[in-house]
Amino acid sequence: MRYVNATLPDGSRRDISVEGGRIAALLPSSGNAASAEDLDLDGALVLPPLVDGHIHLDKTLLGLPWVPNRATGNQVADRIEAERKVRAARSLPESETGTNLVRQVLASGTLHMRSHVDIDNQLGLRNLHEILKVRERFRDLVTIEIVAFPQSGVLRSPGAADLLDAAIADGADLLGGLDPVGIDGDLDGHLDAIFGIAERRGVGIDIHLHDGGEGGIVELLAIAARTKAAGLSGKVAVSHAFALGSVPTARAAETADALADAGVAIMSHGPGAATIPPLLLLRQHGVEVFGGSDNIRDAWSPFGNGDMLDRAMMIGYRANFRHDHELSVAYEMVTSAAARALGLADYGLHVGSRADFVVVAAGSIAEAIASRPRRKLVVKAGRVVARDGMLET
Amino acid sequence: MRYVNATLPDGSRRDISVEGGRIAALLPSSGNAASAEDLDLDGALVLPPLVDGHIHLDKTLLGLPWVPNRATGNQVADRIEAERKVRAARSLPESETGTNLVRQVLASGTLHMRSHVDIDNQLGLRNLHEILKVRERFRDLVTIEIVAFPQSGVLRSPGAADLLDAAIADGADLLGGLDPVGIDGDLDGHLDAIFGIAERRGVGIDIHLHDGGEGGIVELLAIAARTKAAGLSGKVAVSHAFALGSVPTARAAETADALADAGVAIMSHGPGAATIPPLLLLRQHGVEVFGGSDNIRDAWSPFGNGDMLDRAMMIGYRANFRHDHELSVAYEMVTSAAARALGLADYGLHVGSRADFVVVAAGSIAEAIASRPRRKLVVKAGRVVARDGMLET
Repeated sequence: MRYVNATLPDGSRRDISVEGGRIAALLPSSGNAASAEDLDLDGALVLPPLVDGHIHLDKTLLGLPWVPNRATGNQVADRIEAERKVRAARSLPESETGTNLVRQVLASGTLHMRSHVDIDNQLGLRNLHEILKVRERFRDLVTIEIVAFPQSGVLRSPGAADLLDAAIADGADLLGGLDPVGIDGDLDGHLDAIFGIAERRGVGIDIHLHDGGEGGIVELLAIAARTKAAGLSGKVAVSHAFALGSVPTARAAETADALADAGVAIMSHGPGAATIPPLLLLRQHGVEVFGGSDNIRDAWSPFGNGDMLDRAMMIGYRANFRHDHELSVAYEMVTSAAARALGLADYGLHVGSRADFVVVAAGSIAEAIASRPRRKLVVKAGRVVARDGMLET
Repeated sequence: MRYVNATLPDGSRRDISVEGGRIAALLPSSGNAASAEDLDLDGALVLPPLVDGHIHLDKTLLGLPWVPNRATGNQVADRIEAERKVRAARSLPESETGTNLVRQVLASGTLHMRSHVDIDNQLGLRNLHEILKVRERFRDLVTIEIVAFPQSGVLRSPGAADLLDAAIADGADLLGGLDPVGIDGDLDGHLDAIFGIAERRGVGIDIHLHDGGEGGIVELLAIAARTKAAGLSGKVAVSHAFALGSVPTARAAETADALADAGVAIMSHGPGAATIPPLLLLRQHGVEVFGGSDNIRDAWSPFGNGDMLDRAMMIGYRANFRHDHELSVAYEMVTSAAARALGLADYGLHVGSRADFVVVAAGSIAEAIASRPRRKLVVKAGRVVARDGMLET
């Protein structure tokens, strides 16, 4: 079958031929549907699948009645404590709320994601096992990378390192980390633990770093040095890295050089109140910069919906992007750059790739990022799986 | 007729009886529709109409093919120059693009707005007359306050003061202003001009103030002093006031006291990259704080859609609101507080008020702000004018 009269991201008009779930040809548009099997896109913009580089499938409360935020302070540690109370009170398991969220993001065109999953000495591996169920449930539709995330710290949470190791054995794909100084108070101890497990298990790393200012920069430089020493270039990311947005430009540029040299990527969700890393500067210095949702209606934040075009808009809004070439950066952060950071093979709209794409009501990439357009179709392996934001599966 | 089984903002379940376009009764819900004329809201949340305290109906390019941003620098003055080029190239008059925008915001539940309209020596009163046509077109559906806005400055744009005065004579409701120091380079001269006209014409004032830091604070204090001297308490607003978010808290608090004492309100749209005023602190000190869209797909910004629940979410996200009581502040900023700032008589959901309201798919105010819910119905004078985001008129 063919999807005819598609506008590709480069502005060209093409007919997309699908065979065996893959793109068999991308020919200049013939202008009309030739068979009853063809679907006429009428010039609508076709994007590769959206990629969410940072989601928390186990934290969301989506589908539960509204749960007010209970944090008594404004620090990461306060929110960790508040979440422990919310967890204890939830009336649906994480596999159900996580399923609600995957269904929602799938309908918006996201077909790949990296989910952090909380591991601590209260939870053990429970959340991991819940989210493994979700991954299995959606295995034909969505790829879900799982990061074993020490939400309560590693050194301050006795037994956490062993749990993280066991999480990898049970199916998690990457090691997580959390504010080595801000939460664990021991930069080297924290990094020893997680790089040790990652090297032994042969997996990548994605570290939450909220610590700001020069202290956060020192942590970033240590992560870059560890990454080089461990030969993990291209397999390590730091999520948030607010510090890069709170130091002088020259210091951010130096740090960017070290991150690029070590092959450490930076994930930003376009934070609301925290400083945002200087995205354009990082890219100019060769750092892979990608996007993610972060919290979605959970104990951390009431906001978020998992729509990565919406997220790209938020990133662009926070980064003061106004020109089309800047909006393209936000677009890449939720498509190709995120695909590279997640190590997705075979990503993109080209002959031979999987026939996975999103059809949106916009005339160009810039408009798609600025206007949060309607998702007309989500196509997986050549088959329509969502229409106008509603799943058909 | 009645709208039965409505959940009001306070959580109570009520039947709303409508007679002669007004709310005739708000009785505890009977649980079912009694006549064929009744509409069952099935427990959906009913909000008073949304209020946009700061929109630019003449600037939007909505309905035109995508227009890339052309600004060559990142200053207000660069964007003023870029907009002059975009204006010259537009192929639809401001009355048509403004109509597109009013239709869009009406469908999202906004029934009242304050629109700034550019007045300068290139445009003369052309944009004002275009937007007066829009106001007339929607007079039965939407109230539109018009601010005569000196987008190119007052003192640096020869003849601007006379044009502003003529704009009031022609139908504008308030005097605007723009960065007395940053654009005109003369604090007293700028304020002399606009307060002079406002006093003579007996109208209020709404000044765009982007100037940051202590310089911006000095301007705010001068505006407060002028407001008291002119007896314009409650009729003056400052839009943006980024400076309040970039000075030490004690200085912001002092300034808040002066603003509250003078009856000067502050409008914030939840800026993307600029500092946001400390909204909670301002309210604690008695300042009226309200919300607005600011730019919507125009020469200034590619973003924005005019949906005030979306805007309240952006304000809350930028202000780091997470708790329900904070989300309620964002809600008030786009409803009751904006209604007070605009001087709307007879606003709100009570017996005797106009039967104007929005029915949304949310269980509470907090959820309505966090989740940008579907607008099930928009009701004007008791009559459904939009359903599921689509106008019926």
